[in-house]
Amino acid sequence: MLDICLLGCGGSLPVPERNLTSLLLNYNGKKILIDCGEGTQVSMKILGWGFKTIDIICFTHAHADHVIGLPGILLTIANSGRETPLTIIGPPGFSSILNGLMVVCRNLPFKINYIEGSLDGSPVIDTSDLTIRSLELDHLISCIGYSVEIKRFPKFNADKAKSLNIPVKFWSILQKGQSIEFDGNTYTPNLVLSEQRKGIKVSYFTDTRPIDTIIDFVKESDLLIAEGMYGDNDELPKAVKNKHMLFSEAANIAAKANVRELWLTHFSPSLTKPEDYFQSAHEIFSNTKLGFDRIKTSLNFSND
Amino acid sequence: MLDICLLGCGGSLPVPERNLTSLLLNYNGKKILIDCGEGTQVSMKILGWGFKTIDIICFTHAHADHVIGLPGILLTIANSGRETPLTIIGPPGFSSILNGLMVVCRNLPFKINYIEGSLDGSPVIDTSDLTIRSLELDHLISCIGYSVEIKRFPKFNADKAKSLNIPVKFWSILQKGQSIEFDGNTYTPNLVLSEQRKGIKVSYFTDTRPIDTIIDFVKESDLLIAEGMYGDNDELPKAVKNKHMLFSEAANIAAKANVRELWLTHFSPSLTKPEDYFQSAHEIFSNTKLGFDRIKTSLNFSND
Repeated sequence: MLDICLLGCGGSLPVPERNLTSLLLNYNGKKILIDCGEGTQVSMKILGWGFKTIDIICFTHAHADHVIGLPGILLTIANSGRETPLTIIGPPGFSSILNGLMVVCRNLPFKINYIEGSLDGSPVIDTSDLTIRSLELDHLISCIGYSVEIKRFPKFNADKAKSLNIPVKFWSILQKGQSIEFDGNTYTPNLVLSEQRKGIKVSYFTDTRPIDTIIDFVKESDLLIAEGMYGDNDELPKAVKNKHMLFSEAANIAAKANVRELWLTHFSPSLTKPEDYFQSAHEIFSNTKLGFDRIKTSLNFSND
Repeated sequence: MLDICLLGCGGSLPVPERNLTSLLLNYNGKKILIDCGEGTQVSMKILGWGFKTIDIICFTHAHADHVIGLPGILLTIANSGRETPLTIIGPPGFSSILNGLMVVCRNLPFKINYIEGSLDGSPVIDTSDLTIRSLELDHLISCIGYSVEIKRFPKFNADKAKSLNIPVKFWSILQKGQSIEFDGNTYTPNLVLSEQRKGIKVSYFTDTRPIDTIIDFVKESDLLIAEGMYGDNDELPKAVKNKHMLFSEAANIAAKANVRELWLTHFSPSLTKPEDYFQSAHEIFSNTKLGFDRIKTSLNFSND
């Protein structure tokens, strides 16, 4: 099960009723944070999922509303007792921003591994249970979007394993995709495993214009979290100038990419009532929700 | 009149019910901010006094809970339309912290003048209406406390001015402390002005051990805002180790310095109920108040 919480839904400047955009994923007790504006750690504290197991922090870009919360959250993670390394991913050029911000949190009790995100949608992190990919977006500065896929182990065919006389103690090794040697024979996972099964895919992109490459990148996401900086379609010129998206543009991508659900986020401070413009997204993609601080969901593997 | 608002009363880490310590002074439409932890700008937005007229930001030291809000507040000040220079004051060595944090707010529409604070209590800023002094404190890193004095013009003796045949049009110049030349004579302010009158003095110090030099520095403040990191006197060893103060130690300074009123602030996140320890300060200095987010007061010149 993957737990997801949008820690904040505001864009540009924080306002009392909206934290700045930040997303938290929690899978198997490991956490991934995407963006970390000022105030993120307070929203996390209210959420109550803890800080120590934040393993990866992904940044879309270096604008202040997405990054200023980093030093504070690193210090709070340190205070929670973490000592194992933490990975930070950012777009090209982000390491200088990181170095600047970290001036107030030197001497952390854990190491930070910095990885530069990919621009072509290829994996940045690829482990046995998880893939994180990133894609170049179209914003005022270098900016990337993310997709996180929780892998699902293929189905294990016990009858087949029995018929091959493979002892039960080796089954879990094969199920994890590793081969075994036994009685002079090599048994490969494909002998006892089904085809690859669909995992859980969550995609997140903000801030950008709605470029075509996004559609393929977020294709068939179980959940797409996308910016809706402006609600009113009449604000298109402003969206084009500031390199942001309208509600309707995000919904268009959700529809074309055949995602299951769309959450809109990163609302402009001037957008005091996002609900006034909900219809402009809903009429294009019906399973749209307006994000709010700490909207949550849990996604499971499908029943196949 | 000087308006004062404690924007946050938390120390170390932000918690949902307490913003990090930051103090705002508002005099004649000019604002002075002292310390600026993560979330300060949201507390300021709730307060509603505006951002454009923040002229001076003073920092006590470079610990994250006092500084991380800076880039965000500078961007919000920029967004409010400010174009006139803004002054930042910090302890020795603070400029490198400033440079680091400013990595996310380059190209501001106003200039920043950086001034290093004094360690001996002498003035850092001294204008016709205001003096800001700073004093070295005793913390884990370089740290200074501040006192802000709003000056009061001496009383103008109109009868004396009339008897000297000084035209009314020159009175305001003399009242501001400038001399005039008229009819071949020089008229100096002392001819028509009373002795210097007591202004309004507000002092702020956190984080420190209660060193003796503080007493003289904050002497006869109309309001003293001081850290009360720990309430329980039994926590003295922790206060000594972490270079912080107990409620009772802050109250002792308030009593010895003969201040009018004391606000305690910078409560440890572990101090969930400061009121449980209020008595330990109150029995030493009766006009003590426990700070809370956005506690406010207005101070006037006395009626003499």
